[in-house]
Amino acid sequence: MAEPTALILGVGAGLGASLVRRFRAGGLRVAAAARNGERLVGLFAGDDHISSHQVDATDGAAVAALVDKVERESGPVEVAIANSAAWKIAPVIDLSAEEFTAIWQAGCLPAFHLTKAVAKNMIARGRGTILFTGSAAQMRAGAGFGAMAVAKSGLRAFSQAAARDLGPKGLHVAHIAIDGPIDSARTRAANADHNRLVAPDGIAEAYYQLHMQPRAAWSNEIDVRTFAEWL
Amino acid sequence: MAEPTALILGVGAGLGASLVRRFRAGGLRVAAAARNGERLVGLFAGDDHISSHQVDATDGAAVAALVDKVERESGPVEVAIANSAAWKIAPVIDLSAEEFTAIWQAGCLPAFHLTKAVAKNMIARGRGTILFTGSAAQMRAGAGFGAMAVAKSGLRAFSQAAARDLGPKGLHVAHIAIDGPIDSARTRAANADHNRLVAPDGIAEAYYQLHMQPRAAWSNEIDVRTFAEWL
Amino acid sequence: MAEPTALILGVGAGLGASLVRRFRAGGLRVAAAARNGERLVGLFAGDDHISSHQVDATDGAAVAALVDKVERESGPVEVAIANSAAWKIAPVIDLSAEEFTAIWQAGCLPAFHLTKAVAKNMIARGRGTILFTGSAAQMRAGAGFGAMAVAKSGLRAFSQAAARDLGPKGLHVAHIAIDGPIDSARTRAANADHNRLVAPDGIAEAYYQLHMQPRAAWSNEIDVRTFAEWL
Amino acid sequence: MAEPTALILGVGAGLGASLVRRFRAGGLRVAAAARNGERLVGLFAGDDHISSHQVDATDGAAVAALVDKVERESGPVEVAIANSAAWKIAPVIDLSAEEFTAIWQAGCLPAFHLTKAVAKNMIARGRGTILFTGSAAQMRAGAGFGAMAVAKSGLRAFSQAAARDLGPKGLHVAHIAIDGPIDSARTRAANADHNRLVAPDGIAEAYYQLHMQPRAAWSNEIDVRTFAEWL
Repeated sequence: MAEPTALILGVGAGLGASLVRRFRAGGLRVAAAARNGERLVGLFAGDDHISSHQVDATDGAAVAALVDKVERESGPVEVAIANSAAWKIAPVIDLSAEEFTAIWQAGCLPAFHLTKAVAKNMIARGRGTILFTGSAAQMRAGAGFGAMAVAKSGLRAFSQAAARDLGPKGLHVAHIAIDGPIDSARTRAANADHNRLVAPDGIAEAYYQLHMQPRAAWSNEIDVRTFAEWL
Repeated sequence: MAEPTALILGVGAGLGASLVRRFRAGGLRVAAAARNGERLVGLFAGDDHISSHQVDATDGAAVAALVDKVERESGPVEVAIANSAAWKIAPVIDLSAEEFTAIWQAGCLPAFHLTKAVAKNMIARGRGTILFTGSAAQMRAGAGFGAMAVAKSGLRAFSQAAARDLGPKGLHVAHIAIDGPIDSARTRAANADHNRLVAPDGIAEAYYQLHMQPRAAWSNEIDVRTFAEWL
Repeated sequence: MAEPTALILGVGAGLGASLVRRFRAGGLRVAAAARNGERLVGLFAGDDHISSHQVDATDGAAVAALVDKVERESGPVEVAIANSAAWKIAPVIDLSAEEFTAIWQAGCLPAFHLTKAVAKNMIARGRGTILFTGSAAQMRAGAGFGAMAVAKSGLRAFSQAAARDLGPKGLHVAHIAIDGPIDSARTRAANADHNRLVAPDGIAEAYYQLHMQPRAAWSNEIDVRTFAEWL
Repeated sequence: MAEPTALILGVGAGLGASLVRRFRAGGLRVAAAARNGERLVGLFAGDDHISSHQVDATDGAAVAALVDKVERESGPVEVAIANSAAWKIAPVIDLSAEEFTAIWQAGCLPAFHLTKAVAKNMIARGRGTILFTGSAAQMRAGAGFGAMAVAKSGLRAFSQAAARDLGPKGLHVAHIAIDGPIDSARTRAANADHNRLVAPDGIAEAYYQLHMQPRAAWSNEIDVRTFAEWL
């Protein structure tokens, strides 16, 4: 009963939920994980091919244990997605060292932990897809974006290096830079012009298409945004 | 009998032919154009939804006339692709001013002519896809790449500016950076390791997926390469 | 009486004049050239180590003839600076093909012509400095910047390729990206906050310091802006 | 006896020592700090305008205490330089989480700690220079460079954000990307072609010239390399 599985770290009601649904619709089992695993249970109730998990994505041992559990209980992880971030917009002198470090740990480090945890078995199988949710706004080192730009520029650099290390072993690593706020109840309330909100189902489709690419025509970096918004 | 049409400039036996087939398979009529239109006739014989055209893509009036003809004879151009380039690898002091200019005219200027020629009707219809074939190798300004780097860096810059100008009017402009030689009889002969050759059908699939993106989740820039090659 | 000479293409009352004065203060003769050479005569009257020249920098033969003349009449060109640009901010569909091409010819092509014209003798002497005035605003492919972004992105790409081609022969090629309007009577009138204007003498100092770098510690790309303005 | 002081974190026998000498020659007192402060004492013996300090640059409280001590004992810190890094080239799957984190902590975090520690007094004085030693090779996310690319891409992003936050307050923040190995006994032994080694005194001169720039013509990013080497 072990079936190909997509493991998604950092699932909430927004992009994470769209990713769960899209990879499920593509015929994979899905393991959805979040810091607060309880919240996920209700979200995907009724589909026993979707499992919910609690994990601290900044904790390498916890991520490794989760991957072991998912491979044992659901099936080989063919797709692994790191979809976490932390936010604080403030001048660099108003950030504490704890905040600066925590934003890097939440926005960059989980990609490393996840890659380490899934790569060994993926390499043995000769294939696998590893995708990272980046942010164009957070990579842009504007005033107030010091901590986030460090985290998300680091994530992009990690994606490039991991792709070069793991591509020749058959692993497809890619970075998706989302340029603009993702459509949600919260962002609809905060943005008068809803044309400026990026559709989570549309983003999830882009992730799925990356997974479907043949290895002789892989993308490593794509951006996603709306027609109306160019930061 | 007017049906949605994809117009592809710079069609040869390689990526251009794959693009023709992919957009045709997607249900569009296709107008294929090349400097030597004669060569195209045999390539797509037997499918009367594919028309062949001769055009000098560096000549703005000729491109505009071609667009008029295609919209009249085939249907509204819903997809327009500029797929041309010129090559010469040489130190900058060994390039003539004529060569330097001609490489820019072949690798960058057709994107401008094509955009100008199709944008007016696309804007009136409120939609359209405009795609440019870029080259990561040609954008990388290594020794010997002076002329090509100027042309292809310019193409990428044009793609970004055109996307910002035309996106809010409903036009999806995107740049595809191909990173590595495209698989063909010629590149197979020149490269011992065929894993290093990018699959033209795989690239064409990426173009088609860009065309299918909803306007609330558009990509402007993607790269395509093989698992084995990272320049 | 042949003395080391700095040749500056594209001299007006602004940055060009500051460059003339800075390299003159550094002990070099200076040949100042502009499309309207007449205007220059008054500008530097009274210093017979500064000569004024008329040239169309988009014309390769004219630039080559100017270099010959300067080397004959003033001395070996040890520093060559391309300092020209053309402006038009407009959506891509409102630019004519003539304008699009002319902006590239004014903003990028002179760097090629100048490099070709000076490189041969510089290579024979085993040294020389070639500097290009770029523009961060013009490289940024924002809405309305299609033509300028193509020209100035191309200029930067040319600088990188030329540096790789010519560096090992002892020629120092560098690109200076000016980020913001240069201080002048015109920009003072147009900008209420003069802190946002970049000081031409400060920029010229940066060019001179690039020229003074030892070949074991060369910069290829620098930006210059004011403390108050970050585009 | 309080005199303007340059504080340099991460001083060894190479670039750090050149920076100490260059800023001292420019008339500033210099406070040189390293993890192993003992080693520094002999290095600058005989010049009582140079003081040696021991500090763990990854420890924010220790960096803040050092800045307090230097401002008290030597004078106002007008120049602060973060010049530390850590190295490990390995595929991402061969790096431990501890190594990955430690490389970020050594290569990026000290810039944050130093900026926080000096900015408050610099803002009160309305001026100050903060410089970061980056590395082009370490920013390039090639195979094996996962950890270092994350650290040094993050450093560059931090430099840009800090410059935007602090520039309008009169603080000049800049990032110097060194492209190639720095000349030393060790790199001379490892590289047959000494033309490929970047001269530390030349690099230090570039840092000093950045410090001397007027605020109406500041550079935020420069690279330094040799004529013979372009990575």
